[in-house]
Amino acid sequence: MSHIDAEAGADRVQAFTEYRQRMNERILSQDNQVVRRFFALDTQTYKPGALDLKTKELLGLVASMVLRCDDCISYHVAQCKQAGVNRDELFEAFSVGLVVGGSIVIPHMRRAVDFLDQLEAGEPNAAAQA
Amino acid sequence: MSHIDAEAGADRVQAFTEYRQRMNERILSQDNQVVRRFFALDTQTYKPGALDLKTKELLGLVASMVLRCDDCISYHVAQCKQAGVNRDELFEAFSVGLVVGGSIVIPHMRRAVDFLDQLEAGEPNAAAQA
Amino acid sequence: MSHIDAEAGADRVQAFTEYRQRMNERILSQDNQVVRRFFALDTQTYKPGALDLKTKELLGLVASMVLRCDDCISYHVAQCKQAGVNRDELFEAFSVGLVVGGSIVIPHMRRAVDFLDQLEAGEPNAAAQA
Amino acid sequence: MSHIDAEAGADRVQAFTEYRQRMNERILSQDNQVVRRFFALDTQTYKPGALDLKTKELLGLVASMVLRCDDCISYHVAQCKQAGVNRDELFEAFSVGLVVGGSIVIPHMRRAVDFLDQLEAGEPNAAAQA
Amino acid sequence: MSHIDAEAGADRVQAFTEYRQRMNERILSQDNQVVRRFFALDTQTYKPGALDLKTKELLGLVASMVLRCDDCISYHVAQCKQAGVNRDELFEAFSVGLVVGGSIVIPHMRRAVDFLDQLEAGEPNAAAQA
Amino acid sequence: MSHIDAEAGADRVQAFTEYRQRMNERILSQDNQVVRRFFALDTQTYKPGALDLKTKELLGLVASMVLRCDDCISYHVAQCKQAGVNRDELFEAFSVGLVVGGSIVIPHMRRAVDFLDQLEAGEPNAAAQA
Repeated sequence: MSHIDAEAGADRVQAFTEYRQRMNERILSQDNQVVRRFFALDTQTYKPGALDLKTKELLGLVASMVLRCDDCISYHVAQCKQAGVNRDELFEAFSVGLVVGGSIVIPHMRRAVDFLDQLEAGEPNAAAQA
Repeated sequence: MSHIDAEAGADRVQAFTEYRQRMNERILSQDNQVVRRFFALDTQTYKPGALDLKTKELLGLVASMVLRCDDCISYHVAQCKQAGVNRDELFEAFSVGLVVGGSIVIPHMRRAVDFLDQLEAGEPNAAAQA
Repeated sequence: MSHIDAEAGADRVQAFTEYRQRMNERILSQDNQVVRRFFALDTQTYKPGALDLKTKELLGLVASMVLRCDDCISYHVAQCKQAGVNRDELFEAFSVGLVVGGSIVIPHMRRAVDFLDQLEAGEPNAAAQA
Repeated sequence: MSHIDAEAGADRVQAFTEYRQRMNERILSQDNQVVRRFFALDTQTYKPGALDLKTKELLGLVASMVLRCDDCISYHVAQCKQAGVNRDELFEAFSVGLVVGGSIVIPHMRRAVDFLDQLEAGEPNAAAQA
Repeated sequence: MSHIDAEAGADRVQAFTEYRQRMNERILSQDNQVVRRFFALDTQTYKPGALDLKTKELLGLVASMVLRCDDCISYHVAQCKQAGVNRDELFEAFSVGLVVGGSIVIPHMRRAVDFLDQLEAGEPNAAAQA
Repeated sequence: MSHIDAEAGADRVQAFTEYRQRMNERILSQDNQVVRRFFALDTQTYKPGALDLKTKELLGLVASMVLRCDDCISYHVAQCKQAGVNRDELFEAFSVGLVVGGSIVIPHMRRAVDFLDQLEAGEPNAAAQA
């Protein structure tokens, strides 16, 4: 992987993250208690409890895949990576999403793998190895 | 808000509207009566009747949110604004869509609020105040 | 409508309500804070605010129709009736759900109208008129 | 297949058909033009045109499968049978629905095959062969 | 829990399992290779690999919840129980499904908890304790 | 249609095809047997059998429309064209998708017609006629 690809990967991940943060702040600046509480509850949902963080993020990922939401998939792929889920495990989670949700999931899986590649390209080690 | 932002907002709203109109004309130029009747019925659906225009547009908006269609959401946000729905009311409608449809709706809500901001940025008054 | 039909209507509405209440209690008896908070938030969502109760229940109804959940539809039809939504208004809300969601909504609309008929059959006035 | 099974098959198909007709009449008795026009348009959609009846009913069937609506599937299975679609062709349509829609379609496919068996059990020839 | 309830729980679980098995055999008796291969692939999907059985069944459960398929939920609840998932873990999985999928998931969660109660009522230990 | 439009059409179709192929290769390079088998099964699904290629591609197209997946729609529109489905037939298939799936399908139909126009613009004959 070239240095330029590594930068492009990092840029796309960063652009996604920045838009997400900027609009979340915009939403939460509105005085609507139901919306604010929902966002707080969403965060609480993935805290480790009876199930560990890794399992919960994988649950969020597969739920996002079968409901076919690219942004949600990207977000949970990134969270899974941070929680220590490796590529083989991610593909097994993808395989569950694919079989439950059908071929209609495939275009989202393409973009998920693309995003995963970009994430890995943007990692210091990956860039160093390039 | 800068003058440039106001113009960008107006431009994005305009691009959306122009594509929508151009492709609708393209679709209706085809000699398919079922499609043409569906489009006519779609327009008739939001005419005021037992329920007023504002309520009907809000219904269309929340239906579009839980079905997670960005273009439909943008369209109904614009129609709601024209029908006199204010920002607090729009956010209460968003909150119903969010709670019924779940966190999977959040990325669409981000884009809905972004579109709403652009709509308001493109308004003569908003630009004047900027 | 015969006296027997009125009783059957009341019985079916009652069976639905009892199962709903019994299982909600069963769910809330479990020590899971995310689930409990979600149920509380769900209740809060329909409280009158910038939009009145009637409008919010109609939003919940149409969201339930296009997502095609019979129990949710029945619940919001009953809530709409209590909030003073009349039959013509309900059918206009149904028409929005039908046009947005398509013919796939029709079987749910059949059951919604059946439930509405049962609700009205179970009302003191309706039974008296029968 | 026993004589009793053939009768049970015919009864279940008949119960489905009668409820469908009764509630359709109930819906159309309401003075709501959008709903009535939608029902008329729904009927018009499956009239032979550039595509023949058989193809259009198969399209309706697969659309109903991936959207997972049992009543719609039953209806289109019956219509396909009437249009001369045979069991092998129905299973190929099921296979498209299954692969596009995923394993979540399987419970609906079970009920579709059950309904198809009942339809065939209720046919004069099938009963005679039983 | 009374002895009668324990038996009713066991009966409902058994009826679900028998219908499932009978119709699966009926489907697989048809000479359609795509359908047969899909069923084989569905079984293969949940075999332990990079992820263990318990995690994979939880993924199947949450995918089924957000897609709102009662039969699929019941099946995966039973499989999770067999894989050693306890009630607290199941409720955390339910909470992810609920927050991702929204209040539209609640009626399915009611039936999931009802099925789980029946499963536990049908267990030798549960019946003995009743 | 200008020469430039014909080239732009060909470019957009080509960009879609290239991304699809590149990511499919990336996915299949991963050692995950369930995913690989699913992709093989997906290809097998549309082979002519009891139903001919044209009918099967139309089934895939309408399934993709009601599930509202732009990439899947584009793919099946292209496959339909190759299988000899003409524009009138495509619009009849669109009309089934529209009526079953509702107005929420309209934005996807706009993009489907846009893609179809681009496909035709990229055809030697279409360009020659421009």
